[in-house]
Amino acid sequence: MALEIYTLKEGPKMENVAVKNRLSLLRAKMAEYGIDYYMMPTSDFHNSEYAADFFKAREYFTGFTGSNGTVVISKDWAGLWTDGRYFIQAEKEIEGTGVTLYRMGNEGVPTLNEYLKDNMKDGQVLGFDGRVIATAIGLGIEKALKDKKVSFSYERDLADEVWTDRPALPCHEIYKLKEELFGKSFKEKLADVRKKMEEYKCDSHLLSKLDDITWLTNLRGNDVECNPVALSYAFITLDEFHFFVQEAELTDEIKAYCKDNDITVHDYHEVMEFLKNRKYTGNILVDKNNINYSTYRTLLDAAGKDKLVYNDNPTELMKAIKNDTEMKNIREVYIRDSAKLCEFMYWVKTNVGKIPMDEYSAAMKLDSMRAELPGFIELSFPTISAYGPNAAMMHYEATKEDHAEVKPEGMLLVDSGGTYEGGTTDVTRTIVVGPISDEVKKHYTGTCLGMLHLANAKFLKGCTGRNLDILARQPLWAMDIDYKCGTGHGIGYMLNVHEGPHNIRWQYREGLKEYELVPGMIVSDEPGVYKEGSHGIRIENIIEVVEGNKNDDGQFLGFEHLTYAPIDLEAIDTQYMQQGDIDLLNEYHKAVFEKVSPLIKDQAIVDWLKEQTRPISK
Amino acid sequence: MALEIYTLKEGPKMENVAVKNRLSLLRAKMAEYGIDYYMMPTSDFHNSEYAADFFKAREYFTGFTGSNGTVVISKDWAGLWTDGRYFIQAEKEIEGTGVTLYRMGNEGVPTLNEYLKDNMKDGQVLGFDGRVIATAIGLGIEKALKDKKVSFSYERDLADEVWTDRPALPCHEIYKLKEELFGKSFKEKLADVRKKMEEYKCDSHLLSKLDDITWLTNLRGNDVECNPVALSYAFITLDEFHFFVQEAELTDEIKAYCKDNDITVHDYHEVMEFLKNRKYTGNILVDKNNINYSTYRTLLDAAGKDKLVYNDNPTELMKAIKNDTEMKNIREVYIRDSAKLCEFMYWVKTNVGKIPMDEYSAAMKLDSMRAELPGFIELSFPTISAYGPNAAMMHYEATKEDHAEVKPEGMLLVDSGGTYEGGTTDVTRTIVVGPISDEVKKHYTGTCLGMLHLANAKFLKGCTGRNLDILARQPLWAMDIDYKCGTGHGIGYMLNVHEGPHNIRWQYREGLKEYELVPGMIVSDEPGVYKEGSHGIRIENIIEVVEGNKNDDGQFLGFEHLTYAPIDLEAIDTQYMQQGDIDLLNEYHKAVFEKVSPLIKDQAIVDWLKEQTRPISK
Repeated sequence: MALEIYTLKEGPKMENVAVKNRLSLLRAKMAEYGIDYYMMPTSDFHNSEYAADFFKAREYFTGFTGSNGTVVISKDWAGLWTDGRYFIQAEKEIEGTGVTLYRMGNEGVPTLNEYLKDNMKDGQVLGFDGRVIATAIGLGIEKALKDKKVSFSYERDLADEVWTDRPALPCHEIYKLKEELFGKSFKEKLADVRKKMEEYKCDSHLLSKLDDITWLTNLRGNDVECNPVALSYAFITLDEFHFFVQEAELTDEIKAYCKDNDITVHDYHEVMEFLKNRKYTGNILVDKNNINYSTYRTLLDAAGKDKLVYNDNPTELMKAIKNDTEMKNIREVYIRDSAKLCEFMYWVKTNVGKIPMDEYSAAMKLDSMRAELPGFIELSFPTISAYGPNAAMMHYEATKEDHAEVKPEGMLLVDSGGTYEGGTTDVTRTIVVGPISDEVKKHYTGTCLGMLHLANAKFLKGCTGRNLDILARQPLWAMDIDYKCGTGHGIGYMLNVHEGPHNIRWQYREGLKEYELVPGMIVSDEPGVYKEGSHGIRIENIIEVVEGNKNDDGQFLGFEHLTYAPIDLEAIDTQYMQQGDIDLLNEYHKAVFEKVSPLIKDQAIVDWLKEQTRPISK
Repeated sequence: MALEIYTLKEGPKMENVAVKNRLSLLRAKMAEYGIDYYMMPTSDFHNSEYAADFFKAREYFTGFTGSNGTVVISKDWAGLWTDGRYFIQAEKEIEGTGVTLYRMGNEGVPTLNEYLKDNMKDGQVLGFDGRVIATAIGLGIEKALKDKKVSFSYERDLADEVWTDRPALPCHEIYKLKEELFGKSFKEKLADVRKKMEEYKCDSHLLSKLDDITWLTNLRGNDVECNPVALSYAFITLDEFHFFVQEAELTDEIKAYCKDNDITVHDYHEVMEFLKNRKYTGNILVDKNNINYSTYRTLLDAAGKDKLVYNDNPTELMKAIKNDTEMKNIREVYIRDSAKLCEFMYWVKTNVGKIPMDEYSAAMKLDSMRAELPGFIELSFPTISAYGPNAAMMHYEATKEDHAEVKPEGMLLVDSGGTYEGGTTDVTRTIVVGPISDEVKKHYTGTCLGMLHLANAKFLKGCTGRNLDILARQPLWAMDIDYKCGTGHGIGYMLNVHEGPHNIRWQYREGLKEYELVPGMIVSDEPGVYKEGSHGIRIENIIEVVEGNKNDDGQFLGFEHLTYAPIDLEAIDTQYMQQGDIDLLNEYHKAVFEKVSPLIKDQAIVDWLKEQTRPISK
């Protein structure tokens, strides 16, 4: 096949020459290796949410920078699948690349598997790097294509052959935080995991999700943006613990810690050989959703199908249920983080229109304020600072080069958080910076009601997020508005800002496993309104699950807020609120002032906060 | 083993000699056939909800008369599993039988499968009549016991050998209603089913759920109490329709109808032979939840494992989504039925304390009033009329012999309905008949709020009952109260009062299949409060799913009431209501009066209804 080289042409729609040329080169490689469709998701070898630059092949070949998306490329077509958070952003970023956007979940849009099923022909080859494909996804594709005579080529990373200036694999030193921050030692956690392995009748277990390994070992790393994790694998048996990391990441302190804890260290790149050569006597516990397809195929070949036990990765649920030490630290960290956010909100509101302010400079201001807090480690994700219509893009990121000016009108949405010694935070406030329309007030009030209704839910033990999601959505659904994302996600402890296994989402998928909400879990509560081209609103509090009363009817549960920052009363329209709603808002604001004001030194800000949290009435 | 014969002994707790003797005789049979555990559920050969007397072996051997329960008997123990609706009733009815009650869903109570797994020993035999066990249940037991060397004896109906005065198998004439009532002919429905069979790549399909067969054929029968269905099986191919019924049930008219519609009639008892001897070329569609274990094993042996396709029974969803003719008739029937209920409520409230009134006579009064309505066919279930503490038993049934007097104090719960030409109804009202406590008012108001909140939900297409259930439960959960049953069930059209596949329930079970709510579905909305020994409250409206607005965010849906009968304002305490709640109640009451009063001839009742539906305020 001839290699088409694109050069810039003038026209109504700008061509993205760079991306088109990359795709051309990739297509040449596909032809060379007899690959008809080549797939690149957004993943590292560990299904991490944030892939390091080394892993951003999908971005390199499409231009789309969002955190979720999969591109599939054929000789004469390329399609990008992404979710509702990114529809607007993706459309903008792939303009002129020739890549077609497939809006996941929208009516009439085929899933990636459906597309492959409908379009691949007998005898064709689907290629992908099996290390960046989660096993569950690989198995899903196998299932979708089972009636076709299609073969998989999963051992070649084609991107690597085209991408000449590819960044290096991340490699940063692993570190330890104070042991008293954890509430539970590595050895205690490992004993719990082994107990679960025995329950599942397994004598070994491959763990490859980075935050799980990080949580279990009580170590921290720096190989993924905003996630304090190290590229690693762990292979656990009932009496061994094999830890695969890049040797350059190990300091003497960490080596000593490993030795003290009977951790056998191997080089990161030796994991496949290790898995291939090991003699497996008993069953191996694997989490299909998190080990990669290459690892899975290696285990399958080495141990045989019958020895693989697919079940939950027990670490995931243990990690989600915070212990008392963790919860105590988290509560304190959230109040400190909330106080800092209040100071930032004051800064925005008092300075807008008076000093130069743009989305990026506002984000930088907040980031630098957070960095002043004691025990600050890093941001928990790149701060989202989105003004006006930009806020309608759920995961918009303003950059130094590309950002909007913040003017004294409309609203600025700021979604941000930090990882500190003592916890990881996540919070969104949409700040009124000038006149707003009645429609915007209506939408803001609906969003606020959704957040408050969920946070004030009383529910029976046994409920999962699917039972509760509607409480956050109902005020907006009643306005014929939906937000195309989940309502809530779990949050790590000095770890990833998004973690499972629980969440607050409503949509049904056959066979979807749900996890009940139990005390010690923390979860975000973040309804929103996103009106393309007009405005975006999100209010996000983090809430913890707490015990309520217990009686013959069962154990009742509820939530308590962890986040304490004012709801913008300038955007509240009480005509959409019941008296009970007003009471909830006033109670919350009373608590905000009581908890946060003692941490604020500047009396002007305390006065402002008092005003921002004043009780309102109809 | 010696046969123990029980005779009445005096003591603090009355022995149930009759049941004990029956169990003794059964245990002797079990010993004779080498059966260690014998299981009897509540089911006929078709997994019908109401088993005819012929099938009431579980009742015969335990005394428990509820509609759901399974007994398992061993040499020296017997256990009855039933659900929360029946805890109180079962406890009362099995007193003195030696049978132990296992309260399903309660903390620490093993499931039946867990019990068998924990107690059965290698080499033991579990016996049951495979015709009364749904395949899914049989497979569940197989799975639970897979690690044990336990065998199944499923071809013998032991009850039949002990139960000398067993009632005969029901056998009543099949009949036809006016064709214009159906909106769709048998042939059109069959074409739809065949289309689904082709979609599932099946060329035959065993249908054994009676209401499905009844719906599909547009015939009606009379073999199950309150269910207008005939004992039957249907075996459908892409060009044949085999109908297995007792020959005595067929009138000349029905024979002619079958002939006209290319229905091949076989005797009911020939179905197993037919299935055994048939040559299967393609796949067979079976619904594991509804074909019985014996049928399943017969098909497995005759066709081979690979030919059985487990999927939804397509008839079930088609039946649940009412067509326009059905919906038009249903709306009219519900208003007529509601008007009759209003007349009954007036009768209760004006006569209580003045004329002799008991639970049973009140039920008889209502039943006879319903029978006056045009097109009345039969009750849709035996009327529940429960006074005072009896109302805490969800499915309490007063009898001519055993009932409570209705006094002018407290409340009378009446759950009732009829099948008419044009629809099947179901409605519950809890009627204040005298002074009630503030606590009862609080509980009644919470129940009313639950009903109204669900009925007024606005939701996105894609929601299932699990998303919505919390709207009905939240006002009660906020009072630390739960009701131990689902919130809502589908209702047949001139058919069974309970039908699937959709429902409104909250509890998660791994792998549970959920069905989205779509326009044309009707569902009950029946929260309640059940306080053992004190009071019971249930308010049940039937609501239909209706289309709301459609926009970029999706298709919004909502509900409209089908039931129009007053909420008892004497039991409403507005301190538990928001202004929006009061508005909802007032709007509903306005509609009740407007729709129902034109059907009431007695001006005194119209005046009463006007007062009962008056607008209220804080």
